[in-house]
This record gives sequence, structure tokens and C-alpha cells, in this order.
Amino acid sequence: MIKKENLSDLNVQAVNAIRTLSADMVQKANSGHPGTPLGAAAATYAIWAGAMKHNPLNPRWFDRDRFVLSAGHASALIYSILHLFGYGLKIEDLKQFRQKGSLTPGHPEYEHTTGVEITTGPLGQGIANAVGFAWAEKILEAKFNKPEFDIVNHYTYALCGDGCLMEGISAEAISLAGTLKLGKLILLYDSNKITIEGSTDLAFTENVVERFKACDWHTQIVADGNDIAAILSAVEIAKTTDKPSLIQINTKIGFGAPNKEGKPSAHGEPLGEDEIELMKEAFGFPPQEHFFVPKEVQAHFAELVKTSKVQINEWQLLLSHYQEKYHDEYEEFMAWQSEIPSTDFATLVADDSYWDYKETTATRLSSELILNKISPTVPNLLGGSADLAPSTKAVMKDKEYYTNDNPTGLNLRFGVREHAMAAIANGMMVHGGLRPYVAGFFVFSDYMKPAMRLSALMKLPVIYIMTHDSIGVGEDGPTHQPVEHLAALRSIPNFTVIRPCDTQETAAAWAMAITRTTSPTALILTRQNLPILPGSGKASFKGGYILYDDINPNTGLPDVALIASGSEVHLMVEAQKVLRTEGFHARVVSMPSFEIFEEQPADYKDFVLPPILRARLAAEAGSSFGWHKYIGLDGDIISIDSFGESAPANLIFEEHGFTVENVVDRAKKLIEKTK
Amino acid sequence: MIKKENLSDLNVQAVNAIRTLSADMVQKANSGHPGTPLGAAAATYAIWAGAMKHNPLNPRWFDRDRFVLSAGHASALIYSILHLFGYGLKIEDLKQFRQKGSLTPGHPEYEHTTGVEITTGPLGQGIANAVGFAWAEKILEAKFNKPEFDIVNHYTYALCGDGCLMEGISAEAISLAGTLKLGKLILLYDSNKITIEGSTDLAFTENVVERFKACDWHTQIVADGNDIAAILSAVEIAKTTDKPSLIQINTKIGFGAPNKEGKPSAHGEPLGEDEIELMKEAFGFPPQEHFFVPKEVQAHFAELVKTSKVQINEWQLLLSHYQEKYHDEYEEFMAWQSEIPSTDFATLVADDSYWDYKETTATRLSSELILNKISPTVPNLLGGSADLAPSTKAVMKDKEYYTNDNPTGLNLRFGVREHAMAAIANGMMVHGGLRPYVAGFFVFSDYMKPAMRLSALMKLPVIYIMTHDSIGVGEDGPTHQPVEHLAALRSIPNFTVIRPCDTQETAAAWAMAITRTTSPTALILTRQNLPILPGSGKASFKGGYILYDDINPNTGLPDVALIASGSEVHLMVEAQKVLRTEGFHARVVSMPSFEIFEEQPADYKDFVLPPILRARLAAEAGSSFGWHKYIGLDGDIISIDSFGESAPANLIFEEHGFTVENVVDRAKKLIEKTK
Repeated sequence: MIKKENLSDLNVQAVNAIRTLSADMVQKANSGHPGTPLGAAAATYAIWAGAMKHNPLNPRWFDRDRFVLSAGHASALIYSILHLFGYGLKIEDLKQFRQKGSLTPGHPEYEHTTGVEITTGPLGQGIANAVGFAWAEKILEAKFNKPEFDIVNHYTYALCGDGCLMEGISAEAISLAGTLKLGKLILLYDSNKITIEGSTDLAFTENVVERFKACDWHTQIVADGNDIAAILSAVEIAKTTDKPSLIQINTKIGFGAPNKEGKPSAHGEPLGEDEIELMKEAFGFPPQEHFFVPKEVQAHFAELVKTSKVQINEWQLLLSHYQEKYHDEYEEFMAWQSEIPSTDFATLVADDSYWDYKETTATRLSSELILNKISPTVPNLLGGSADLAPSTKAVMKDKEYYTNDNPTGLNLRFGVREHAMAAIANGMMVHGGLRPYVAGFFVFSDYMKPAMRLSALMKLPVIYIMTHDSIGVGEDGPTHQPVEHLAALRSIPNFTVIRPCDTQETAAAWAMAITRTTSPTALILTRQNLPILPGSGKASFKGGYILYDDINPNTGLPDVALIASGSEVHLMVEAQKVLRTEGFHARVVSMPSFEIFEEQPADYKDFVLPPILRARLAAEAGSSFGWHKYIGLDGDIISIDSFGESAPANLIFEEHGFTVENVVDRAKKLIEKTK
Repeated sequence: MIKKENLSDLNVQAVNAIRTLSADMVQKANSGHPGTPLGAAAATYAIWAGAMKHNPLNPRWFDRDRFVLSAGHASALIYSILHLFGYGLKIEDLKQFRQKGSLTPGHPEYEHTTGVEITTGPLGQGIANAVGFAWAEKILEAKFNKPEFDIVNHYTYALCGDGCLMEGISAEAISLAGTLKLGKLILLYDSNKITIEGSTDLAFTENVVERFKACDWHTQIVADGNDIAAILSAVEIAKTTDKPSLIQINTKIGFGAPNKEGKPSAHGEPLGEDEIELMKEAFGFPPQEHFFVPKEVQAHFAELVKTSKVQINEWQLLLSHYQEKYHDEYEEFMAWQSEIPSTDFATLVADDSYWDYKETTATRLSSELILNKISPTVPNLLGGSADLAPSTKAVMKDKEYYTNDNPTGLNLRFGVREHAMAAIANGMMVHGGLRPYVAGFFVFSDYMKPAMRLSALMKLPVIYIMTHDSIGVGEDGPTHQPVEHLAALRSIPNFTVIRPCDTQETAAAWAMAITRTTSPTALILTRQNLPILPGSGKASFKGGYILYDDINPNTGLPDVALIASGSEVHLMVEAQKVLRTEGFHARVVSMPSFEIFEEQPADYKDFVLPPILRARLAAEAGSSFGWHKYIGLDGDIISIDSFGESAPANLIFEEHGFTVENVVDRAKKLIEKTK
């Protein structure tokens, strides 16, 4: 590692190489953001070369320090660094910046480029992700470390700009991080006083340092963003406090580009060949050579990598001693890092008692019941609510609450911060070692959506427990009654939505959520009571299935398919009975999950909903948007395509046509119409 | 108005009447939130009785002070106040709290209950709305006031709790309000130290006052939330600063309920009859009488209303003198308050030149062109971007930028604060006098969604300019490429989405956005160039229409319908030509707006997409979710149901099958299949 006492021109040359590589990348791509890579090059170099423990030969080393580029648009910066440290990016990869199929996409992508810790780009998310990393570290540290065995002991660094700090999500995360005393979180604020529209004076005049102090952060200012020694000193000091640390680093956007530095035009477009030549000339680099790295700079990074091996070797030795001395804990430590569900979990789900329920109850309470069966079998399952634990019923009774005095507690309290909560869960999941869920009122999934999208994009199996799932909320009225939210989540790629109709389907929903390892899952749960439907449960592993059938002997088909999810399945079941007494044959299809149903083979889907059967009536206490995939042009749907209202739930259901009479009536009309 | 020098037991009784009315309401409804109404009763009474200028006989008086109950769950508080001041709520209405069709729904609803300024409930929104109110006031004040004629001169009060302050949206709004020096914004922070999950120590330990100071707010603390005189003093002081003011009022949740006050259980459930009796007894009210208001308290409020008439009379006199002296300005002042578009606007849109374009261009640039045609005809049109003005092209060149030194500028700068931006626009719209638009990258509509939903719920014609509308974003990659966002917005009730295919349809889109007065409109615009399609334009007033037709003479119908929106319409047009050369007859349907198409008569819809025509191929560079309403079970769609990637846009379009060859091929297969 570089030391602040031994800095030389070589370090400056290393920083300048990061700058010219970044500028060349953006120029060649004719697209991208050179401003921050140039301005924050010295700070980022200081952290990677002089503060972080990391090793390109073991990029997934569990106890490495993490670096989150919250200002994800500065991707050229991280790619330059990863190239120089030998993380697998070649000069050829840098030349393919932002090109199809390259390892160097426009914004950093998790599990795409080795050394990129997490996908960033949407501003503010990275700060909340970093809070998730640091919180995960603190929990695992408390859980697994033993005297003289600090097997978990790493820092999380995040680099952000003004943009990230203006976003509300970062304010939520910053406030919570202060409460949690995340002493191993170090946030580097690249303060360049420039936004896309101009000076930060136009719209961002708050005193950032004072705001962080008010949130109980340790704060420092480095007056010159090119002063590597000062940055390293600040990091040393940051490591001495038990508070999260802000280091504001005053920089100049586009530093080194003589005509553009300090200007908004340096932010998000190529600097131009002429400007880059001038910069290289000033740096003493051959002006017309592209992607040039001085030999001594290459040697410098090679040397850094060599010495960084020592750290990982020491840790591996420590871990092997830990394994000897604390065998069970070691096994647990390794198990927590695995994505494979435990045998205890498999045993639980294989047992009939997991599937058999009698009691009429709200599915949020069913979820509480199941969660508490599952919790002991998934020991690293942790989660909580945005100040709604008594309502979302998402508390694990075998586990304690997390507090600063009890940092192994796995029931978390996020405060009223839905957006940060979801992004923190993403950070925890990516960090590794923990299996997070978060809970809230379904209508406020709107507040979480940007982070939910990133769960899906990163293929993170975060579990979202969403209660109060419809107009069934009743008296709280339209602001609290989800309508379009099922459609909103179902339309996200790689996001699984499950809306169970009773406790048995809730048991299946949880089993699926735990075992689906490459997509997030949202469990959509009622506030109102629902009885048990015999035959529900395991069948819902197919996403949609025939719950009750009734074939017309004359046609060999049902006369009509009644399709529903969640609470509306019960309505269909009742309607089927009435239809039967009137001589009509209805098939009831329970469809708890569109996404899982779509994963089934075409044969199965055609079996459940035969293409020839056009009399299809759906019912769902939400928007009809998206349902025509199953009901087609000829079908019908009882849905809610307006906002709800404040009233006892049963009255609102009635008003919107969720009555047996209406289902029967509409079904008969449909049968007639499609004859 | 009450004066802090003349307070007596009567004022305490008035406050206690608010408490018992609120407690009785929640109890009778067996649902609701008594904690804040009891805790914040004195503060709210102090503001309404001793600080605000308002008059129940003229509840829409333009120059009234506004009160935003950001803690909307405390609706019983505002309903009690409105009843006592005679705003039209009778005791009978209070008894119908949270019942179907009542004037007293679970959360306050705009245009539903007289005296409720804006719909609140989703936490944090109200603070941003209040910033919108105060910003609107400041702009109108600067625009219309003349020496000795302060015709616009009112304050915005907002009441919030811990929950609102934990939400990120409030942090965004607070930071911006400080920059804007909104001196007429007074935020009352009901600090009761209790959240649903317990003490604020669990998850909210920041120093709120210091945080506001860091954001350049004036701050005060009132140590005793029942001290009316202290609250009135604090308001007086708040009015002397040119900064926005925070008054932290230390209260006890559920004050007066002897066994529940200070506890989370006072927050969100009825107190219980016994507890309410004990409270009434302590207040000296008949313990078993419900909805009781002492006669002297009734008389007290009647007296307050009488004196408040003076203010409005003075203002009306002032306005009539203003009318005499500044006739043009008066006319303009009245015109700005009207929702009817100007005759200039009507003339503009009636002129052929508004509709005729030749140039190939991105629709974001088309939008810039049209916006700048419209801007002079809608003089109170104002808006801006979340630090993306150079990209969203949403700047009006005939208008100046708003700055603190130039507060009549109508181009606004929101900083990187999408969520607050949308909620501020809602506040401005509700305030009256202004016509706001906001702009951003379409993918970040996710950040705005909770506020967009409230635009729709409140029927506010806020205009959302959403650019970079698809994988056409290209190199910025999947974090910046919207996929599911059209589905997300289309599924919101009362929200209009328009995705035009060229400049002519963009002209129509803007004309619709300006004239649709009861729903928000989102304009979804490309970054990439699109040529002009002859025949597009006015026809899109129907939402969907036959752009080019080609009937098979043998059937009297087209063989296939090619349906698309935005950039994909061009693909369909090209494919139609190829199909024609191969002997197939395709109808091209341009569908810029599902919502507006759905508003058309069934006959028209069946004319455009005849039910008998099942060969329907759609193409849209977004999720297929929702399209089956038009393509049915037999149709096909070229869409994007995965995340995008970082690459030049044309390559991503190709990869996802957006090629003429693929359209032609799929169309032919469809014709064959549906024969």
C-alpha cells in the first residue's frame, strides 16, 4: 500500500494515468462522463492504493474492503482502476467502453465486471447500498468474531457527488447510518460544486458537513482533492471513530482538461481530442497516444498487488485457526455465505404439517406464521419494516431485535424510510452472508420501486413482504389502497410477484421466495381474513393452477374459466358453486403468480387455460392492466380501474362488483357471448 | 384572532374540545389515529385561531394562508378544526368519520372536504407540497404585487411528525426550500418522540433542528406543545425572517388520555371508551357525552370567524383599487387563476403551422419546439428539470430562469430531486395561479411515482415531460433504459400517457396535455431521431388511429393490424411497405395513448381494431405488459421483457427484434396462424 509519508511524482503519474485512460475511454466511445473520473481520480487512487484491503487475484475475498461507486456515471474511473490493478480488464476492454457485450458498460454492473461491487447509476442508491454493506459487516462481525479472531473486519467506502446527496434516498440512509453507528462506513463526497445545470449554488446550497453532523456522522474536509496524503490522513482519522464518516473532498470537475475543468461541460460528454491532447501534454504523457500508461506506473500497480497478497494470506491463516478452535462457528460462517437453503429448511417444507391449515385468517398473519416456521431453518434470514412491524407482521420471534447494544439481533428497524430500506437490503444481499427481507404497506411499494428494480436487475433474491394489498385496507382510503401496484411490480423484468389466497398458498409463496435465488420476490398479503381452500398450497408452485374444476360433459370443457389471485379466489369459488346449481360448469383457476405461471411449459399453460376456451372471467382487486394476457379480447374482468375510497372494506368490494352475484351474472353473459 | 397576551381557560377548553371530538371520531369509526390529534391539538389550534388568515365563508379566498396537514393520518384533527370553525362539517359528518361517502375520509382529500387544502397521507409528500405552495406564493407575489398593493401575501403552514421527516422526499424539499429562501413557509414539527414501533431513539436520532439549520432554515423549539402563547410567539418570530422556518414543538402523543399518552398504542387505534371517559373527566367535560362541545367554545369559534371577515374585506377592497390602478395586471392576475386556456393558445393550435413539420428529429427536441410555441400563449406555464435541463429540453426561451434575485422567472431548477420536484408541482397546481410541468429521464419516473399517483388522485393536470424513453438511450445501459415504465404509468388510474411518434404527434400531445384539466399527462419522448410521418398529428387526439391502411379486397379487411407507439410506429410503416410488395395488406395503427383511445366510443375503437381482426401485431420498445388488451390471445408483440444493455441504440433495437424483417416475418406468421 502507498503511505502518505512516501509519496512521489510516481503517485501523481498514476493518478494522471487514471485520468487519461478515462478520458480516452469516453472519447473513443463518443459517450460517457469524463468529469468525475478526472476530478476524483486522486481520491479514488488514494483509497484503492493506500487504504483498501483488496486483491485482484481474490476479488471475492469475503473480508475485503468494499468500494461502492455511488456516482455510477463515473464508471470510466472504476474501469481504469480495475485495469491498472489487474482485475481482468485489458486495454482492449477499456477500448470497448459502452459497446455491446463489453465488460465496460455505461454504468457499473454487478456480476458483470470483476471488481465492481454493485450496480450503480440511479443516483443516491449507492449510498444506501453502502449502508447495507456496512450494516451487514457489523452484524456478521458481532456474530462471528471471537477474541483475537477478527475474521470479519472490513470497511465500506463509497464515492458520491452532489447528485447522490440531493436524492432523498441518501438522506434516509445517512440518517439511519448515524443512528446505527456504522463506524466502518466511510463516505467520500466528491465536492466539485458543479451540476449538469451549472453551479451547485443554483439548487444545492445546504451545508453538507453540518447536515451529516446533525445525523451524528464524523466529518472531515479535505481542501485539495489532489492531496493524496491529506486524503489518506483523513481516512486514518475516520477509522478511529465509531461513527460513520464523511470525508468531503473538494475537487475540480474535469481536472486536467485545461479548457473544460470546473465547468458543467466536463460532466457528461467527451472532452474532445484536442482537449485530451492538451491534458496529456501537461501531464508529460505522449499527447497523441491513446490508452497510454507509463511503464513505471504499470510497475507501481504490480507492486501494490504483490504486497496486497500478504493481507489475504494472513486472513486465510486466521480463518484456518478459527476453523480449528471454533469448528461450529466456522461451519456456520461458511453456511451463511452459501446460497443453498439448509437441510432444516428442506425438511420443514417436506413435512406435511407445513402445508396443512384450517384457520381463517389474514394472509399477513399467515405470513407471520410461516415466517416464524422458516426463520429457525434460515438462520441468516434478517429483516424488518419501515416502522410498521405491528402491521406487517414481519417479526421473527426466535430472533432478537438489532440494536447498537445487541448487534446480532436480526429483526431490523428501518424507520419510516421505505426507499432506503429496499436499497439497504440490496446492499446486504450483495455483501453476502445474510438473507434480507423487508416489509411495508403494498401501496408504498411506490416509494421502494427504484430499489426494487435494482434487486431485479442484479438478480438479488430480496424478499418484499407487502401487506394491506388492496381496497381491503378499507377506512384508510385511496392514498393507502393499492390499485395499480400489482401491475407495476408484475411489469418489472425478473421480478416475481406472488399473491396467495390463503395460508396454504402463503406457505408455498414463502417456500418459493426462499428457494428462488436469482430474482426478488414480493409477497402480496391481505389485511382482511380469508378462509382456507382445500386443495390450495403446493399446487401454487406452478404459479397458476386449476383449483376446482367442473367439466361440461357435452363439450369436454368447462363453460367458463374463473381466474383470480389472492382474496378474489374465494369469490370465484363461491360463484362456481352458484353457477353449478344453475347448470353452468366453471373452472376456478388460482393464479397467485403470473411470472411463475409463465415459466411453465406451454402444454401446462394450455391445459390450465385451453386456447379454445374463450369464456374467461378474471377478478382481482386491482387494476385490470395486464390481465388481458389471460382473458384475451373476448373475456371479462372484475377489477378496479379507479382509485378506492375510505369506507369499511366490504362496502368498497361490493361497490366495485366483487360480489358472487356479479361474478355469476358476468360469467353467464360471457358464456352466452362466446358460444 | 386570539392573542398570546389574552389567553384564558377558554382557549384550553377549545383545545380540549378538538381532542375529545377527535377521540370520539376515531372511537365511533373504530378506526383511525387519535395520537397526533390529541398531541398536536394546541399547536394546530394556535395556528388556526391565532396566526392564519382564513375564512370559512370564503374557503377558496386566493390570498388565504394555507395549512397542509402533512401528517395526514391525523385527519380527525383537521376535521375537528373545520367543524369548529364552521367550514361546513357538521357533527353528523364527524360521526361518519371513515364511512362510505362521508365528508370525513380516513386521510384528508383535496376537493372533497371544504377547508382541506391538499390530499395527504403518504408521508413526506405534504412537506414537499407545502414547498410548492410557498414557492408559488413567492412567484405570484413577485409577479403581481405593486407598491402598497400586496395582493399576494400569504403564508403556508405545514404540520408534520417524525414520519414525514424520515422520508427522503422531505429532505429533498427542505434542502431546496432553504436554497429558495421561502420565508413564508412555516413548518410545525410535532415532535412526540414516538413512532409506531416505539421510541424515536430506535431509528431516528438525528438532531432535526441542526439538520434544518444546515439547510439554511430558521429554527425554533417550543418546549411545551400545550403552550399556546409560546407557539404564537414562535410564529411571530418566524415571520420576521426571510428563511423558511422550522418550529419544533415538543408534544406528547395522545395527550390527555391518561393511560395511553406518550405511548405508541395511542398512535393508530381507538383509545377505548373507558380511556376517553377518563380524558373527558379530566378536561371537565361530561364523560359519557359524545361529540360534546361546550357552548362557550362554540361561541368562541363563532367570534373568531366574525373577526376573520375583516381581513378578507380589506383584501377585496385592496384588489378593487388594484383593478382600477393596474387594470392590465388585474386582468392577468385573474387570467392566471383560470383553468381555461387562453385565446392565444386556441389560436395557436387552430393554425395550420402548428401542425406541419418536415424535419427528422428526436421527439424531445420536437417537444422543445412545441413547448416554446405554447409558452407565450400560456403565460403562467412554469417548470423545469431535476438537473437535466440540457437533456430534457424543457426550457422556455421566452421566459427567464427563476432565482432568488429574479423571482418572476418561470424556468425552475429543482436540483437532483425528482420526487420532491413532482410533489412541489402538485403543491403549485393546488395552490392556484400557475400551470406547472416537470421534466426528467423516463426511467427515473420511478423516483417520482408516489407524487405522480397523487397528481392523478387529486386530478391535477401537472405535465410530466419524460425523455430518453426506451433502450434508445443506448450506451447508458440498463439502469437508464426504461422497460416497464410505460406499463407502470398506464396502470395508474386517471393518468394520461402519450408517446408520440414524430413532431406532429408531439404537437398534438402538448395540445392535449394543456387542455386536459382533470388528469396529469406524461409525454414520453425519444432521445433518437424520428422522421415525420405524413398524416400523423391531429388524428392522435383520438389516442389511437389508422395511420396508413391497406384493405384486402377479398375480405374487405386488412390481413393484419400493426399497432405501435412512438419510435416503433416507423418500424411498422416500413414493414407495411414490404408486406404490400409481398401481397399482404397491413393496417398501421398509431397508438400514442391507451387512455385517450379508451375514452373513445366503442364504435370508433371497433373501427380502428375490428373485433373480427385477430391478426394483430404490436411493437413497443418496452414491456409487453398491458398490450394484450389490443392483441388478445391470438396476437403477437415485439417488446422488451428483460432489461436493456449498454450499447449503441441501434444494436439493442436489432437484438430485441425491432427490425423490418422481423416485423414482416412475424406478421406473415400471424396471418397464417389466424386464417
